[in-house]
Amino acid sequence: MALDVLDTQTSEEQLLQVNQALSSGMFVHVRQMLHHMACADVAFLLESSPTKTRMVLWQMVDHDQQGEILEELPEDVKDSLISQMSAESLASATAGMDTDDLAYILRSLPDSVYQEVLQSMDTQDRHRVEQALSYPDDTAGSLMNTDTVAIRPDISVDVILRYLRIRGELPEATDTLYVVDKRDKLLGGVAITTLLTCDPNITIKKLMNQELEAIPVDMEDSKVSMLFERHDWVSAPVIDNDGKLLGRITIDDVVDVIREDAEHSMLSMAGMEDDVDTFGPVFKSTLRRSLWLTVNLFAALLAASVSSMFEGTLEQFATIAILMTIVPSMGGVAGNQTLALVIRGLALGHIGDSNARWLIGKELAIGFLNGLIWALLIFVVVWLWKGEVSFAILISGAMLVNLTVAGLAGAAIPLLLKKLNIDPALAGGMALTTITDVIGLFAFLGLATLVLL
Amino acid sequence: MALDVLDTQTSEEQLLQVNQALSSGMFVHVRQMLHHMACADVAFLLESSPTKTRMVLWQMVDHDQQGEILEELPEDVKDSLISQMSAESLASATAGMDTDDLAYILRSLPDSVYQEVLQSMDTQDRHRVEQALSYPDDTAGSLMNTDTVAIRPDISVDVILRYLRIRGELPEATDTLYVVDKRDKLLGGVAITTLLTCDPNITIKKLMNQELEAIPVDMEDSKVSMLFERHDWVSAPVIDNDGKLLGRITIDDVVDVIREDAEHSMLSMAGMEDDVDTFGPVFKSTLRRSLWLTVNLFAALLAASVSSMFEGTLEQFATIAILMTIVPSMGGVAGNQTLALVIRGLALGHIGDSNARWLIGKELAIGFLNGLIWALLIFVVVWLWKGEVSFAILISGAMLVNLTVAGLAGAAIPLLLKKLNIDPALAGGMALTTITDVIGLFAFLGLATLVLL
Repeated sequence: MALDVLDTQTSEEQLLQVNQALSSGMFVHVRQMLHHMACADVAFLLESSPTKTRMVLWQMVDHDQQGEILEELPEDVKDSLISQMSAESLASATAGMDTDDLAYILRSLPDSVYQEVLQSMDTQDRHRVEQALSYPDDTAGSLMNTDTVAIRPDISVDVILRYLRIRGELPEATDTLYVVDKRDKLLGGVAITTLLTCDPNITIKKLMNQELEAIPVDMEDSKVSMLFERHDWVSAPVIDNDGKLLGRITIDDVVDVIREDAEHSMLSMAGMEDDVDTFGPVFKSTLRRSLWLTVNLFAALLAASVSSMFEGTLEQFATIAILMTIVPSMGGVAGNQTLALVIRGLALGHIGDSNARWLIGKELAIGFLNGLIWALLIFVVVWLWKGEVSFAILISGAMLVNLTVAGLAGAAIPLLLKKLNIDPALAGGMALTTITDVIGLFAFLGLATLVLL
Repeated sequence: MALDVLDTQTSEEQLLQVNQALSSGMFVHVRQMLHHMACADVAFLLESSPTKTRMVLWQMVDHDQQGEILEELPEDVKDSLISQMSAESLASATAGMDTDDLAYILRSLPDSVYQEVLQSMDTQDRHRVEQALSYPDDTAGSLMNTDTVAIRPDISVDVILRYLRIRGELPEATDTLYVVDKRDKLLGGVAITTLLTCDPNITIKKLMNQELEAIPVDMEDSKVSMLFERHDWVSAPVIDNDGKLLGRITIDDVVDVIREDAEHSMLSMAGMEDDVDTFGPVFKSTLRRSLWLTVNLFAALLAASVSSMFEGTLEQFATIAILMTIVPSMGGVAGNQTLALVIRGLALGHIGDSNARWLIGKELAIGFLNGLIWALLIFVVVWLWKGEVSFAILISGAMLVNLTVAGLAGAAIPLLLKKLNIDPALAGGMALTTITDVIGLFAFLGLATLVLL
C-alpha cells in the first residue's frame, strides 16, 4: 500500500460529504462513513456541526469509539454529549480512557451516574481515577497521566531492554523512562533514544539525567505550558511535595492548554467566554453574551451622562455634537492597541515588577507622540471641513489629551487588574473604553464649553 | 544531587536579579549569571528587557550560546539583535543551528553577510540550508528539519539496533525512524518505542507502520499545526510531490505556530502586528501603530458625516446628541462578540461552506433576540431618565435595528473577507465597527428626524 499523503482538503470535504448524506437521509451510509473515519476526525466533524446534527451524528457513532472521540472534544461540546448519555453507555465509553480525561468526565456527572461508572472499573483503575479527581482543575495534577514507566537505578541497560521486550508496548509519547528509588522518589530520567544508542552493560545510575526537571503536582497549568514551550519538552514527570513520582504530562495535553490560554485572551477581550461553542443553541448563546452587553450599557450611559453635562453647549452648536464621537473613537483604538500588547506580555510572563514601570513610561510616550500626530491631522481635516479654526483647535486639543490618556490607561489598567487578581483580558477592554470615552467627551465638550460659551 | 524541582518564580526572580545587578553596574556578575543560565532562560530575559538593556545583555552573552539563544527568540527581537552583529560573529553563532532557524536568519541578512555566513559552512550543511531557503515562509518546508534517521525495509531490527549503537546520539525529539527505498521514497515508519519492545529478529518491513501520514512540503503551516493537534503527533515526516522523504517537523516548532496563530487573531483584532516587540523603541512602535489609527480616523469621520446629515435635528434637540452614542456602542460590542467567535471558528477550520449559512442564520437570530432585550431595557432607562416617551421609543427602535445588523455583520464580514482572501482578524473589527457605527447613527438620527421634525 502506498503512503497516505494528506490531502489538505480532507476534513472540509468529509464535513461536506457527511452533511450531504445526512440531508438526503442516507443514515446507513453516514454510519459507515463515521465507522471508517479516525476518532480525531469524527470529533472535528461533531465540533463543526449545529447542535441538532451533532446529536444525530453522535447516535450513529460506534460505541467503542465514543470514549476516544470524547477525549478529543472541547469542554462545552463534550458536556452537551455526556448529558445525553445513559450511565451504561458512559461506563462502556470511558473504559480505557486516559486518567486525566476520565477524571474530567466524572467531575461533570451527576452523583448516581458517577458511582455507576466508578463501580464498573477495576480496583487499580478506580484508585487512579480517584487520585486524579483529588487534584484541582487548572493544575499540573489535572493534566497528568499515571502511565509512566519507572525503573530502578542499580540495574543495567541490558536488563531494562529485556524487561521492555517482555512488557511489550509503551504508553504513547513515551520519550523518557523515569528512575525511582524504593519509595518511588524520582531520581532522574533516561531518554529512550539513549537506551538505543548506549553500551548495554552500563548501569542506569551512570546513564541517567539527574538534572531532569520535574513539575510539582500543584503548579498552575499555564506555568506548565510555559515550561514545555521554553524547554521543548515532549513529556515531563510530575512529583508531589516529597519528590515522589506521581505521573507525567505529555505535550499533546499541553498544546490544548496553550491553545486555550491564547484563545482566552482573544475571546475575553471581545467579551466572550472561552469555552463557548460556535454551534451552540441560540437562547443559550444569547444569555451567555448578555453580561458583557449589560456592562457596556452602563459604560454607554456613563458616556451619555458626560455629554448630558454639556447640554447647553450641544444646544447651541450642532457641529460640536457631530464632531464629538471622533475623539473617543481614536482613543479607544489607540488604547486597545496598547492593551492587547500588555495582555499578551502578561500572559507570556514577559512583564513583571522589574519592567512594568518602564513599560508604562514607554506607552505614555507613544500615547503623547500619537496625540501630537493625530491632533495635527484632525486640525487640518476639521478646519477644511467646517472652515472654522476654533472647532479645529478644540478637537485637536481634546485629541492630544485623550490619546495620551489612552496610552497610559492601556498599559496601567491590565497591570492594575493583574495586581488585583482580576483577569485583564476579561475586564481590561471595557474599563479602557469607558475611560477613553469619558475622557474624550469630557476633554472635547469641556474645552468647547470653556471657549465657545 | 537531588532532583531539580522547579520553582515557579524562577524566571521572574532571575529577571529581577539581573536587572538589579545591571543597574548597580556589576557587569562581571551579570556575565556570570548569564553564563550559568539555560539558553531558553536567557532568551526569555532578553525578550523581557527594554531595547537598550537588551543590547547591553546581548554583548555579555557567551558567543557559543548566541546561536541557541537566537533560535528561541521571536522574530522581531531576533531581527534587532542580528542587525547589530558582525558577519564573523553571525557565522560562528549559526554553526550547528537547526536548518529551519538558520534559513530564517539567512533570509533576513544583507547579501554580503549572507555569502560570508554560507562560505563558513561545510558543503553538506550549505547544501541543506540552500535547500531550506528554497521553501516559502509559512509552509511545511520552512518548519522542517533535515535531521531524519532513515532506514531500509529489508533489514532486521537487530541490525538497526547495532547501527544505532554505532551511530550514537539521535536528533532531539526523534520518536520515529523513517523507512525509505533506494530512491529515498518514504515507505513507512517505525516508532523507536517499537524497536525497544519487539522481537529483534523481525525485519523492518514487517514491523513498519505503512499508514504513517506524511506532510507535503508545500502545505500551509497552520494546516500542519492543525494536523499535529488533531493527531497528537510528536514529529511527522515531510515529503515532496514524488513521495521522497525531505525531512521532518517536530512538535516544538509546531507549538510556536499554534501560539503565533492564536496571538495573531488577538493582536490583529486590536490593530497590532503579531510580531510586535513589547519592549521595542518608542518611535518605531508609534509608526507601526499609525496605520490602524489612520483607518479608524476615516471610520470616525464617516460616522461624523452621518451625524452631519442630521444637523437640523441635532440643532433642535440636544437630548438626541446626548443619546446618540449609546446605540452604536452596543452594536459594536454585540458585533464584536460574534466576530471573535467566527474568527476563531475559521482559524480552527470548524467553519466551512457546509455550515456557514447555518451560522449566519444563528447569529442573525441571536442579534434579533439581543435587539429585543436591549431595546426594552433602553426604553425603560431613557424613559426614566429623560421623562419623555418619544425619545425612549426612538432609541429602542434604533437599538433593535442595530443589534440585528450587528449579529448579521459579525458573522458575514469575516466569512466574506475569508472568501476575498483578506485576513478576517485584521480587517474584520474595523469593518464591523464602521458598519455598526454608521447603521446605529443612521437608525437613531434618521428615526428622530422622521418623528420629531
